Amino acid sequence: MSRVTTTPRDSAFVRACRGLPVPHTPVWFMRQAGRSLPEYRKIREGIGMLDSCRRPDLVTEITLQPVRRHGVDAAILFSDIVVPLAAAGVDLDIVPGTGPVISAPLRSRAGLAQLDGPGDVGFVAEAVRLLLAELGPTPLIGFAGAPFTLASYLIEGGPSRTYLRTKAMMYGEPDLWHDLCARLAEITLAFLKVQAAAGVSAVQLFDSWAGALSEADYRRFVLPHSASVLAGLAEFDIPRIHFGVGTSVLLGAMGEAAADVVGVDWRTPLTRATELIGPDRAVQGNLDPAVLFAPWEAIEVEALRVLAEGRSAPGHVFNLGHGVLPETDPGKLTRLVDLIHRS
Amino acid sequence: MSRVTTTPRDSAFVRACRGLPVPHTPVWFMRQAGRSLPEYRKIREGIGMLDSCRRPDLVTEITLQPVRRHGVDAAILFSDIVVPLAAAGVDLDIVPGTGPVISAPLRSRAGLAQLDGPGDVGFVAEAVRLLLAELGPTPLIGFAGAPFTLASYLIEGGPSRTYLRTKAMMYGEPDLWHDLCARLAEITLAFLKVQAAAGVSAVQLFDSWAGALSEADYRRFVLPHSASVLAGLAEFDIPRIHFGVGTSVLLGAMGEAAADVVGVDWRTPLTRATELIGPDRAVQGNLDPAVLFAPWEAIEVEALRVLAEGRSAPGHVFNLGHGVLPETDPGKLTRLVDLIHRS
Repeated sequence: MSRVTTTPRDSAFVRACRGLPVPHTPVWFMRQAGRSLPEYRKIREGIGMLDSCRRPDLVTEITLQPVRRHGVDAAILFSDIVVPLAAAGVDLDIVPGTGPVISAPLRSRAGLAQLDGPGDVGFVAEAVRLLLAELGPTPLIGFAGAPFTLASYLIEGGPSRTYLRTKAMMYGEPDLWHDLCARLAEITLAFLKVQAAAGVSAVQLFDSWAGALSEADYRRFVLPHSASVLAGLAEFDIPRIHFGVGTSVLLGAMGEAAADVVGVDWRTPLTRATELIGPDRAVQGNLDPAVLFAPWEAIEVEALRVLAEGRSAPGHVFNLGHGVLPETDPGKLTRLVDLIHRS
Repeated sequence: MSRVTTTPRDSAFVRACRGLPVPHTPVWFMRQAGRSLPEYRKIREGIGMLDSCRRPDLVTEITLQPVRRHGVDAAILFSDIVVPLAAAGVDLDIVPGTGPVISAPLRSRAGLAQLDGPGDVGFVAEAVRLLLAELGPTPLIGFAGAPFTLASYLIEGGPSRTYLRTKAMMYGEPDLWHDLCARLAEITLAFLKVQAAAGVSAVQLFDSWAGALSEADYRRFVLPHSASVLAGLAEFDIPRIHFGVGTSVLLGAMGEAAADVVGVDWRTPLTRATELIGPDRAVQGNLDPAVLFAPWEAIEVEALRVLAEGRSAPGHVFNLGHGVLPETDPGKLTRLVDLIHRS
């Protein structure tokens, strides 16, 4: 769409993920398709979040909106991390202003029965096919939530600040915890395989809340399951991005989980992140999304700092350190893309 | 009260803060005086949070409750970080289930006028005097919020997940930001000086939300103000504890801010924290408060690990990595104190 490449595989985005030379640093934004865009708010009017994720026509249009508007180097499939859970049989809703709410939180082994195994997500394959036809040489990134973050929603029943029931299960019933995460890993892998088979050029595994854990607990309770998802995609030979928030102490481990690219939030400079992640993986990030609320001059200083720090890595995909905040001025995002492409 | 010492200055708690030999590792809990205790919920019935912080009789009773029940090695003054802001003239309330809510969020230089300068906190001096008479050899820890965390409440108008307005001011209006924080540092220092002059044996500066920042931003925008608070207490010769959550990348800087002890959340093992903080300061922490929801056997394993890791530091005060969660079984806290004292 916006960049001059012949195929998604030759794009600056895919090349940067693989640590290959690029004509410019590629840039996209987590939650680029979302509430910061007036055209998104308009198209979503009166349509629930889960419903909109299940309609290939809507998924296609919403996914394309930020590509058209900002000229980013990659599209990311519009979806939600609980979509495969709903498909697997879990009774849940996404409540505006709250997030996912699970009808019957999973607190015991009996609750595992809620997860029938991967469900039908044919609508996702259909959306990917529609998107590939529209996107041309712009790569499409597939999307899924990681087992820990999914488990935390299932166990807590919704968003949490403390993860106390999740951690109580980890420490108190480790066998149940591992069985649950193994099942979630299966569901997640199946969801990503559908996207990969349909032709996405990369995938990002969102373990949004893994930063609630120490490295020791992450390695013991989480890494094996996330690694089984990412390793399970090896046959597709597409870059695998692994991202979480507040993961300063987890970056090395998150790379080891069969990732090709590690997403970094704004707390860790990319120079330091690169030391922690090692020379075999690219990095993605890491402008603080809150910086976009400062005047342009301050945004430019911070963005150029991130760009300079990213040069220490074998490959760098410019992004924010977390999702675009809904109140963000989309004009600043467009200007930021332009700055990154020119710099 | 519980421990065999003659004066608070000789207590295991104060000695551990100073890196001196101790008969046993001292232990107390952030938010030990609070909603986890039925006697607290009873005494607070029908009394607002701010009102209860302003009544010396209530402050005394609430502060003593966990000392009686658990036999912890230190009491911490029952208060709230916004108490000195209210005394300084800011119109605010503490709303149950939400937290502090500011009537007129501070978004411009004109808003600085809300902060008249340190107000009358004589009720705190009175509470400290009453407490010292009751506590005998058990040390009392003074309490205040740090400039960044206070500024974030003032600017956002209440609790925040993103700190977008706070960061927008930092980046966009750095002079206003520094003027605001300098004024908050004055108010905080005055609040702590009242407590120190009245006889507390140590102070803890809570920069609860500093973990939202990168180290570079912390050093540029926050450290000088927190350091001016802590350095301003030097004349009292009492240990100064400096604590925040999610501060893995900030621990060294937080120590440099004239702290004697750095509080560490559960994400960073105390062995690693000690490397970052250096050999001149003690550490406090860092059992995950969520671990207390696991069976006792798992709690014991984790607590003994924390204790062992704490031996790498010049001094170690056992604590949780953040405040006691309201749903915590207080019986487990009592048992934990006993375990730490015996180990």
